Amino acid sequence: MKLHFSPQSPYVRKVMIVAHELGCLSEIETAITAAHPVQRNADLITRNPLGQIPALELADGRVLYDSRVICEYLNELHGGTIFPASGPERWRALTEQSLGDGMLAGAMLARYETVARPPELQWRDWLDGQLGKAGSGLAAVEREAANLADRIDIGTITIACALGYLDLRFPDFGWRESFPRVAEWEIQFGERASLKATRPPV
Amino acid sequence: MKLHFSPQSPYVRKVMIVAHELGCLSEIETAITAAHPVQRNADLITRNPLGQIPALELADGRVLYDSRVICEYLNELHGGTIFPASGPERWRALTEQSLGDGMLAGAMLARYETVARPPELQWRDWLDGQLGKAGSGLAAVEREAANLADRIDIGTITIACALGYLDLRFPDFGWRESFPRVAEWEIQFGERASLKATRPPV
Repeated sequence: MKLHFSPQSPYVRKVMIVAHELGCLSEIETAITAAHPVQRNADLITRNPLGQIPALELADGRVLYDSRVICEYLNELHGGTIFPASGPERWRALTEQSLGDGMLAGAMLARYETVARPPELQWRDWLDGQLGKAGSGLAAVEREAANLADRIDIGTITIACALGYLDLRFPDFGWRESFPRVAEWEIQFGERASLKATRPPV
Repeated sequence: MKLHFSPQSPYVRKVMIVAHELGCLSEIETAITAAHPVQRNADLITRNPLGQIPALELADGRVLYDSRVICEYLNELHGGTIFPASGPERWRALTEQSLGDGMLAGAMLARYETVARPPELQWRDWLDGQLGKAGSGLAAVEREAANLADRIDIGTITIACALGYLDLRFPDFGWRESFPRVAEWEIQFGERASLKATRPPV
């Protein structure tokens, strides 16, 4: 199968971490693919009409997207436990995935506001509101930090990808000072081979 | 359980359609809740740190979000078939959900660009790129329209919510003229009681 890929995309990173953890990296061919909300990629759109990555092409021609669907597909294909099958653990992990994805969505919109939009059209209130999602998300993670330890599931993986993206694109955000329990967890979680191998190049 | 709700939100509508189809509407108390990306709702943030709706408060205090998680939770609680349990049907429905959610995300960003952002800061290229997601999404749905008929799952429900939102916020978008097979399907699907009962007020 072929994964439309960028080493900087935090949503692609989710998929790569899951593949590492499941031991199925060798099955995935990666194709470097540019995706941009304004200069949309016409070739990518023929595969994923949203023009976004990750998108996973299967051998039979089907294309799966977005990262949530691809991660769950890989987990099911390999009988993994990255997605708890049912019960409170499933809803906790999926809601944490929504939290991490939402923090990422806000941070990416903040990034586009500052690097894609012409300077004279930038709006401070929008930037603050979008980055505010990352901030209020982190505050919630800090309150629940004791529940993150020793869990390798789509919830903790997505939260780690959100933190990694903040470090990559907003190195002055300073979340470690404000949220010390998250910072402590992130150090431990970041020791995993899957996290190290997928760290985005600066 | 208590659903943080707005009658105009297409993501809330997904949840309400699923609840209608599962026959569990009477279990859900709705609480009208304002959510805005710039004027963020501090009270809502204490429940969903992203400050977004829908968010579902359970009796034991847990809060589930976003719409994907809530819809799947309701489906599992009631043993429904809105989420196919496994196999190609599951990945098709989930990828269609991603497509509909992505079309909605683009359309909502286009909406914020025109009604939330001060006129002198609006950027035409951004608007076009975001609405372009709805357009290229519709082109893909048109190609697959034969596969939508007679299916009531999270894929078809989400695509219908995306079309309803375009009609609500972009009545001049003119998708029916460009995508006649989607238009034909939408008329039939829109006859369902769940769709009629949740149509957003203009």
